[in-house]
Amino acid sequence: MDRRQLISEIKRKQSYLCVGLDTDLEKIPAHLRQTDDPIFSFNKAIIDATRDHCVAYKPNIAFYEAYGSAGWISLEKTIDYIGSTHFIIADAKRGDIGNTSARYAQAFFGAMQADAITVAPYMGEDSVTPFFSYPDKWVILLALTSNKGSQDFQFIEDGDGPLYEHVLRKSATWGNIDNLMFVVGATHPEYFADIRKLVPDHFLLVPGVGAQGGDLRAVSEHGFNRDIGLLINSTRDIIYASNGHDFAEAAGAKASAVQREMSELMERAGLV
Amino acid sequence: MDRRQLISEIKRKQSYLCVGLDTDLEKIPAHLRQTDDPIFSFNKAIIDATRDHCVAYKPNIAFYEAYGSAGWISLEKTIDYIGSTHFIIADAKRGDIGNTSARYAQAFFGAMQADAITVAPYMGEDSVTPFFSYPDKWVILLALTSNKGSQDFQFIEDGDGPLYEHVLRKSATWGNIDNLMFVVGATHPEYFADIRKLVPDHFLLVPGVGAQGGDLRAVSEHGFNRDIGLLINSTRDIIYASNGHDFAEAAGAKASAVQREMSELMERAGLV
Repeated sequence: MDRRQLISEIKRKQSYLCVGLDTDLEKIPAHLRQTDDPIFSFNKAIIDATRDHCVAYKPNIAFYEAYGSAGWISLEKTIDYIGSTHFIIADAKRGDIGNTSARYAQAFFGAMQADAITVAPYMGEDSVTPFFSYPDKWVILLALTSNKGSQDFQFIEDGDGPLYEHVLRKSATWGNIDNLMFVVGATHPEYFADIRKLVPDHFLLVPGVGAQGGDLRAVSEHGFNRDIGLLINSTRDIIYASNGHDFAEAAGAKASAVQREMSELMERAGLV
Repeated sequence: MDRRQLISEIKRKQSYLCVGLDTDLEKIPAHLRQTDDPIFSFNKAIIDATRDHCVAYKPNIAFYEAYGSAGWISLEKTIDYIGSTHFIIADAKRGDIGNTSARYAQAFFGAMQADAITVAPYMGEDSVTPFFSYPDKWVILLALTSNKGSQDFQFIEDGDGPLYEHVLRKSATWGNIDNLMFVVGATHPEYFADIRKLVPDHFLLVPGVGAQGGDLRAVSEHGFNRDIGLLINSTRDIIYASNGHDFAEAAGAKASAVQREMSELMERAGLV
């Protein structure tokens, strides 16, 4: 999915919601555990219930790998099932030397049809650029993450600003607004204004709203650009809204409520 | 495999060689492509031919993921086939928020029986520590990598030294010499002396000898500690030593030659 299509879908649905698919066998409703592929059964129901309210899905690859090759089969089925109507983010946090990143690109953009992959920046340019050789596919590079450990290295500062600003500035020269987004955690709303100065036109993927404590309104007001420029992820609040037989209905209701809030925020910002 | 066993195997074999399994369908001998699982067929023959000469294997997970769930099946078979006689490094460069890193740990230490996983440090402490909850399993944290992109961020320097030194110092307080190693690229032998001052007792995993240009002697002389403290990886020089019917024999001969050089270096350093 290219930038124009993504923006168009966001405006049409009045939603910049990304639903995280961190599907955990221990958290899904007990009755699904009897099916052949409980992870896929759960995802399929969640996708059916939420697809009108969101523009993106973000399967967290760790939750599939945890079950080995069987988990990868569930992941492949999930991505096939979502299809091309939504922006699919493989939340994989990959990144390695050039010939290896090229293989990760093949995994997620060739063997699988994700639109984007999250990438860790530590290894620099040649670990990121191989992903750009697939047209209309995206790198979403970690900049400022939502977790406590973001304090350990991301704020190390030389004369030119903290590490995460180096990441933003440098990587913006490797890709462009059509193939590169950044991860900026919702737990750091106070940094959004400065980040928008460095990358005014890029999309930001924002995790951490909801269970991790981030605030949708603050993030939106500080993070919007003229093309919206935000994908805000919510996972646990939506997919685990209920663990009874009504789990899909509850997830749909929660996603719909977030969409309505997003619609209001877009309207207030003059973006629809 | 715990530290004591690893050191004992290194001394017994007079080898600190790790063989990288970056198995590429386009590079393996043509006659193997007709088998049911060409990647596993190749790995099995390489492992049989090299296992007496090395103490560790390092499957590069990207090369398996590139083929989707089928690739993961080849990976699982490979790790099972290596078994507990060798130190198995899942070269995965993972790392995410705590609950997600816990899933990666489950993938490689639970569903699969690797001994170690490579981890990227960008997300800090809570992205690393979940891996420590498995006894006798290891994190191998990226510090100074062998690629050109290592220049982009790893040398960003505040008053307390470059980023990779921050990673060494800080992470050494999260784990210990029994569960934490570091990746230090062979293309930076001039930094080994300073690195050894910061982490005198940790094992270092050193990629980049051979095809990437690193020098075995320089790395060994600068990197040894009293317990050897090095695992030096070689991939392409060994596994692609020939692409004919003699590929396994050629790989074995090459691994044996490296082992003999390592034996001499250990002897010269008074380590055997």
